Amino acid sequence: MAVFKEYKTMSYDLDSMLAHYAELAINVGLNLQPGQRLLMWRVPPESAPLARLVAAKAYDAGASLVDVMWEDDGLKLARFNHAPRHSFDEYMSWQADGMEEHVKGGGALISIRGNDPDLLKGQNPELVNKVQRRRWQLIEPTMHYVTRNRVNWLVIGTATGGWARKVFPDIPAADAVSKLWDTIFELCRLDLPDPVQVWQDHISSLRQRSHYLNTKQYLALKYKGPGTDLTLGLPKGHIWKGARSDSELGIPFTPNLPTEEIFTLPHRLEAEGVVSASLPLNYGGALIEDFSVRFEQGRAVSVSASRGEEILQAMIDSDEGAAHLGEVALVAHSTPIAQTQRLYYNTLYDENAASHVALGRAYNMNLQGADLMSQEELLQAGCNYSLIHVDFMIGSDALDIDGVREDGQVEPVMRAGEWAFDM
Amino acid sequence: MAVFKEYKTMSYDLDSMLAHYAELAINVGLNLQPGQRLLMWRVPPESAPLARLVAAKAYDAGASLVDVMWEDDGLKLARFNHAPRHSFDEYMSWQADGMEEHVKGGGALISIRGNDPDLLKGQNPELVNKVQRRRWQLIEPTMHYVTRNRVNWLVIGTATGGWARKVFPDIPAADAVSKLWDTIFELCRLDLPDPVQVWQDHISSLRQRSHYLNTKQYLALKYKGPGTDLTLGLPKGHIWKGARSDSELGIPFTPNLPTEEIFTLPHRLEAEGVVSASLPLNYGGALIEDFSVRFEQGRAVSVSASRGEEILQAMIDSDEGAAHLGEVALVAHSTPIAQTQRLYYNTLYDENAASHVALGRAYNMNLQGADLMSQEELLQAGCNYSLIHVDFMIGSDALDIDGVREDGQVEPVMRAGEWAFDM
Repeated sequence: MAVFKEYKTMSYDLDSMLAHYAELAINVGLNLQPGQRLLMWRVPPESAPLARLVAAKAYDAGASLVDVMWEDDGLKLARFNHAPRHSFDEYMSWQADGMEEHVKGGGALISIRGNDPDLLKGQNPELVNKVQRRRWQLIEPTMHYVTRNRVNWLVIGTATGGWARKVFPDIPAADAVSKLWDTIFELCRLDLPDPVQVWQDHISSLRQRSHYLNTKQYLALKYKGPGTDLTLGLPKGHIWKGARSDSELGIPFTPNLPTEEIFTLPHRLEAEGVVSASLPLNYGGALIEDFSVRFEQGRAVSVSASRGEEILQAMIDSDEGAAHLGEVALVAHSTPIAQTQRLYYNTLYDENAASHVALGRAYNMNLQGADLMSQEELLQAGCNYSLIHVDFMIGSDALDIDGVREDGQVEPVMRAGEWAFDM
Repeated sequence: MAVFKEYKTMSYDLDSMLAHYAELAINVGLNLQPGQRLLMWRVPPESAPLARLVAAKAYDAGASLVDVMWEDDGLKLARFNHAPRHSFDEYMSWQADGMEEHVKGGGALISIRGNDPDLLKGQNPELVNKVQRRRWQLIEPTMHYVTRNRVNWLVIGTATGGWARKVFPDIPAADAVSKLWDTIFELCRLDLPDPVQVWQDHISSLRQRSHYLNTKQYLALKYKGPGTDLTLGLPKGHIWKGARSDSELGIPFTPNLPTEEIFTLPHRLEAEGVVSASLPLNYGGALIEDFSVRFEQGRAVSVSASRGEEILQAMIDSDEGAAHLGEVALVAHSTPIAQTQRLYYNTLYDENAASHVALGRAYNMNLQGADLMSQEELLQAGCNYSLIHVDFMIGSDALDIDGVREDGQVEPVMRAGEWAFDM
C-alpha cells in the first residue's frame, strides 16, 4: 500500500489513473480483440469521462465500434417519485434488443456500475420488484449468451456521488467520490508498480485453486458459521472457475475487476439448512439487511430479515428458479476487499469480499457438457434456471467449509474464512 | 429584461429556472398528453439534471413512461481520434430502431441539444460526412413520421461546456455555461412574469402572419441582399406554418423552443440565382463559413466557402435531393435572438435569429394534400425528398423579400429584415 500512498502525495492525477483503469479493463479484463465491437452498459452519465477513456483504449486495441448504453439513477428515481402508479407495467425494449443483437454478433460487453444503493429506499416494494423483474425479463436473451460466455464480458465499478455517499457517509460529498476512486484503484491493484503482472499472477493463483477443487470433485460442501449450518450438494461434472474464462469464440477474459473468487454451481435440489448473510444485499436500489434463508431440498422455504424482508420474499417468489441456488463462490477473508472491512453496497465489490451464494440462474460454464443439454436435461443435472441471478454474502472470518468426498470423508476447504488447503 | 436581471440579482436559482424550463417544454412545447410516452434524445450526459426535471414534469403531466437516449460528444470524438480508419462504415442501429418503434406507437419526442460546434474541427471531412450520412439513414424511418407530425415533438437547447465555450470564448468555462443558461432562459422568455401567457401571445402572432401569407399564395419569393439575388418558386397549395403544429393524432404542439420563424416549402425545381449565408453552418460538428450557393432550376450547381467547402460540397452530393431546397423560413430581424447579435453555432438558435432556407427534405405538412400523394406525386408537386435536412441562415437587416402575385405584381414581404405587411 506504500506505493499507493505515494501516488496520493505525489501529484495524484485522476485522469491518468482513470486511463490506467480503462487500459486494465480493455486489456486484462476484457482482452478485447482487434476488429471486435464493444458495448458499455449501465453507465451512469456522471461517469462519461471514464466511458470516453474506455472507448479510446478500446479503439487503440483495434475495436471497430464502441457504443454506450447509459443508465441514470436520477431518471429512475423521477419515475418512482412522479409516475402514475398504474404505469409501472410499461417498459421500452430498445436497449435490451440492442444488447441481444450486439452479443449475438460477437461484440464484447462491459457493465460499468456505480448505482446509488439507497436510490429506492422507502419506495413501494411491489413497484420496485415489478420494475426489477421486468428488467430481468428484458435482458434474458442477452443473459442467455452471457452466462454461456458466448462473448468476452466484464463488470467494473465507477465512483459516483450516490455510491460514494453510501460507502463514506461521514465525509463531504466531493471527498467521498475521490476516496471511492482511491479505493477502487487500490482494490484493482493499480497502486502497485506493475499492475498487469500482478493481475496475471493473481489470476494464475485463482486458477490453481479452481484446478485443485475440480480434481477433488466433492459431492457436497458443508458450511458452519454464526447463523449458518448449510449443506450444499454439488452436481456431477461441476466445474470451478476462477478469474479467467474463455469465450465460446475462443477469447480468454477476466469477467470481474477486481476478482477474488472461485465459483461453481450447487445442485439446485440439494441445499439443506440455514444460511445467514454476512453483508446486506442491494436489490434494484433497495437494501435487504440481516437476513437468513432456510433451504429444504434445495428450495428457500423461509426467509427473515431486519429490513427489506418483503422485497427478499418477492424476489424469491418471482419465478420457480428464484427460490433455488445457482452459484456457490469461495473468497478468502485475507483478500484486499475483505481487509478494508467496509461494506460497499455493490455486488461486484461485496461478492469479492466474502464467500457467497446466488439465488437464481446457474452458469452453464460451471457444468460439463451443459452446452449440449436441453433445458430439461440441465434441470435434471441440477443446473438451476431463473430470470434472476442475485448474489448474497455469507463469508466471514468465522466461517468453516468442508468438502465431502465420494467415500464420505470430509476434508477442510476453508477454516476461519481462509483457504485450508495448499497447492 | 429588467425582471430577468432581477432574477440574477435576487438569488437566481439554476435548479428552479431549469424546472420552469422543463415545464415550458412539457406543457407549452410538447403539450404532452396523459398516458403518452416520452423519449428524450441527443441528450448530453452532462445535461442529466435537466433530463431528470423534464422526466419529472412529464410524469406530473401523466406520462406513462419516459426514457432517454443519450449522446456524448466525447465518445464521438474518441472514435475520430482513436478508431481504425477503415472502421467508419460500422454502425449500431439500436437507438434508431428504438426511436422508430416509439414514434410508431404514438410516443412524443424531445431532442435536447448542446453539441460542441467545434467537436470535429480538423477531422477528415470524408469521415465526418460518412458518419453524418449514416446517421441520417438510420433515423430516416423516424424522420418519416416526424416530418409528417405523426406525433408531438420538440427541440430545445441545453447549455453544455463545449457549446458555451464556443459562444462565449472570452470568459472562464464555468461562467460561460452559466451565461449560456441565462441566455437560454432569456430567449425562451422565462425572464418575463408570465412566460406561458407570453408564449401563447407570441404563438398567436406568428400564426396570424402565416395565415396572411397563406391567403396571398404567392407564386414566388424574390430575395435581394448582400451577395444574395435569388428567386424561389412556391408550389401551388403551399402552406405557411408558424410556432404551432397539430400532430396527426390531434395534439397541438410547438416544435421548437424558442421559435421565431414561419416557414413553408419552395418548389424543388424553382430556385434561380445566388444566395449567401449570413451565419456559419455547423454540420455534424464541422463548421462551414462565409459560404454561398448558386442555384439553377432548383439545383445547387456551385458552392463556395472560406472554410468547410469540401464538407458543404459532400453534403450537397450526398443524395439527389440534397442539392435542392426543402424549406424556406422568414424571421424578423428585431426578434430577441437576432437582437443578441451573437452567433450560437446551433441551428435551433441560429435559425430563429434569421430568415433561412434548408437543403434537403421538405415537410409534408407544408403542402396541401401531401399525405394522400405518392412519392412520385410529391416530387411532381415540387416537394423535395432527401435523407438530409440542413438549415442555413440568409437573413440580416439588409435583406429585402418580395412576394410575386399570380398577376405578376410584386408586394413587399420583408424590408431591411423586418415584416413589411400589417395584420
